[in-house]
Amino acid sequence: MLSQKVVTNLTNASGIRAMFEQGEKLRALYGADKVFDFTLGNPDSEPPEFVKNTIKKLVSDDIGVHKYMNNAGFMDVREKVAKSLSNETGVDLPANNIVMTCGAAGGLNIILKSILNPDEEVIIFAPYFVEYSFYIDNHGGRTVIVKSDMNTFEPDIGDLDKKITSKTKAIIINSPNNPTGVIYKEETLKKISEILKNKEKEYNTSIFVISDEPYNKLVYDGIKLPSILKIFDNSILGCSFSKSLSLPGERIGFIAANPKIKEVNLLMDALIFANRILGFVNAPSLFQKVVAESMDVTVDIEIYKKRRDLIYNHLINLGFSCIKPQGAFYLFPKALIDDDVEFVNMALKYNLLVVPGKGFGCPGYFRIAYCSSIETIENSLPAFEALAKECRK
Amino acid sequence: MLSQKVVTNLTNASGIRAMFEQGEKLRALYGADKVFDFTLGNPDSEPPEFVKNTIKKLVSDDIGVHKYMNNAGFMDVREKVAKSLSNETGVDLPANNIVMTCGAAGGLNIILKSILNPDEEVIIFAPYFVEYSFYIDNHGGRTVIVKSDMNTFEPDIGDLDKKITSKTKAIIINSPNNPTGVIYKEETLKKISEILKNKEKEYNTSIFVISDEPYNKLVYDGIKLPSILKIFDNSILGCSFSKSLSLPGERIGFIAANPKIKEVNLLMDALIFANRILGFVNAPSLFQKVVAESMDVTVDIEIYKKRRDLIYNHLINLGFSCIKPQGAFYLFPKALIDDDVEFVNMALKYNLLVVPGKGFGCPGYFRIAYCSSIETIENSLPAFEALAKECRK
Repeated sequence: MLSQKVVTNLTNASGIRAMFEQGEKLRALYGADKVFDFTLGNPDSEPPEFVKNTIKKLVSDDIGVHKYMNNAGFMDVREKVAKSLSNETGVDLPANNIVMTCGAAGGLNIILKSILNPDEEVIIFAPYFVEYSFYIDNHGGRTVIVKSDMNTFEPDIGDLDKKITSKTKAIIINSPNNPTGVIYKEETLKKISEILKNKEKEYNTSIFVISDEPYNKLVYDGIKLPSILKIFDNSILGCSFSKSLSLPGERIGFIAANPKIKEVNLLMDALIFANRILGFVNAPSLFQKVVAESMDVTVDIEIYKKRRDLIYNHLINLGFSCIKPQGAFYLFPKALIDDDVEFVNMALKYNLLVVPGKGFGCPGYFRIAYCSSIETIENSLPAFEALAKECRK
Repeated sequence: MLSQKVVTNLTNASGIRAMFEQGEKLRALYGADKVFDFTLGNPDSEPPEFVKNTIKKLVSDDIGVHKYMNNAGFMDVREKVAKSLSNETGVDLPANNIVMTCGAAGGLNIILKSILNPDEEVIIFAPYFVEYSFYIDNHGGRTVIVKSDMNTFEPDIGDLDKKITSKTKAIIINSPNNPTGVIYKEETLKKISEILKNKEKEYNTSIFVISDEPYNKLVYDGIKLPSILKIFDNSILGCSFSKSLSLPGERIGFIAANPKIKEVNLLMDALIFANRILGFVNAPSLFQKVVAESMDVTVDIEIYKKRRDLIYNHLINLGFSCIKPQGAFYLFPKALIDDDVEFVNMALKYNLLVVPGKGFGCPGYFRIAYCSSIETIENSLPAFEALAKECRK
């Protein structure tokens, strides 16, 4: 009676859902403050006051902020986004190369719809964001998984070289990465660029680099993100204000396409058309105006850094093996027993909710989302200790 | 380099775009107040003051209105929507049968994704909303077009009976209709229900009735909309606040599934999952809360009625043939010459912008969206007169 593919995927995805339900049960039993839920990338903080005041000002003063506009977004908003991004990346972007989108997730679907023909391949790097393979499948593409170097969580360049075929239409880069928090080094990105150029020559194809960047403002230790637009001519960015402004529920982001893409104007037309026909129609209108006023604003990044340091140092002291990430708000440590799903179930005994690495294509690890309050993190430390002790028995 | 299907559809859709561009040119030449643009269903009115005040109140007072929630929407919002809809339709709907969506367009895509298997058929009635065939194609389905009775713009029951096959998965009903404004009579809907029941028996299938209802509050002359949920057991509503609250840019609506659907819980799981993987993730969070507070509020419907009467009476006086519609904000008169595209081009000479019927699967007619100001309509009346005169030469 229903889509068989959707029903099958639903069933496969039911493991994680069962865990969420387990969390709800724990909260009901012990109280929310006694349960340490690190499963979701749902920032605990409110948007900056500037953002809240901007919403109220726009609703009071401006006529037309709730109306339809061009499917690409309000032109004044696209201009402000383009200007800000040009300053940031050093690549001169016209407003016409920006499409406002329903978050980065909406953006990625629009990009894939615009470029994929049946059975073309899209490469993602494991560990990967769980949704990529669904997005690729939505638009008739095939997911090809490339390994990472498990000492750095950076792409395995050799494996990438092997996996590119004449059907490779795009690769998805996600740095700062979900689930690892790792930022890819400029050197690594340049190696990837070399490989893509060689393969494009070999197969006489064009390979897009889709950069999924919801965490591009959550960067620590004075690191500067390498500019994807500078390194890859054939690049399209999918950005979001969900994390930088703590607005994940509002579904507001944008796509920026590199002016060096051949036929970039046709690509823009396709993206705008895809935004329309996939049913997004346009990015939510009030929040387009809000983010355009807030291009220089972010939540307090130092708060995340403090949380990372607190939980990372504790895990290392407990003997966990974990790469210290410099972006996003995730840690991806090795589980203390081989089976990450069993490990995550053991953690539940201590009211500790984390996500098994298996779902990210990387069994044996687990993800901690440290976007919950510092109190929750502090209170959870003994639970991690007790869990480590049990695993060592 | 791009999706060939998207590029082809883009090219086919370029006629309407050329007309929009023509409109922009006219506005630049003569001034916006001298151009009578009736092309877009973009209400000129602002949302009710109550809605604006609710936005400001929520942003000031409520913590967490911008966060992720369950992909189905905030539970308190779903409860309020379910309660209101139960009162309105007389069918008892639990909150679990509601999914908050990015407008009705997002809702329709989620429904189609959840139910369609490759090459299954979805029936739409001509004249139809232009986007349906794209939505159906997005999810691997095939569009089957059924004629309407051209004297009433209601579905041609005989043609429907002929076009249903073993592959028919759903029919889409859109009443009040875009582009005709017509409301289907209860009697007509009951005849459709009979046919569906017979065909379901014949083929041993289930056929969903998808009711696309963005205009369900824009109803005139004391008419009461027949309840789709009461007439069709196997029905799913796609609703929107775009028109009833003048919030089209905000992309906020909901799906309601009939409790009588077999396996309705599995359907709900599929819908929620589709909302997630298509990249909507969830309906914009602040506006979920806003509409939940505004379930009993609408824009002033009488204003639309006045506009309809003004323009309809004028057209009839000029000798146009037009069904007087009782809903939405569209008129769909017969063009005064055979070729509707040529007619629409002639109208441009009088700074009059309307849409040819061809794009709605109904050549020989044209659509007027009368959601622009009463002044624009008043000022346009001589232009319609001059156009009629030229056609009669």
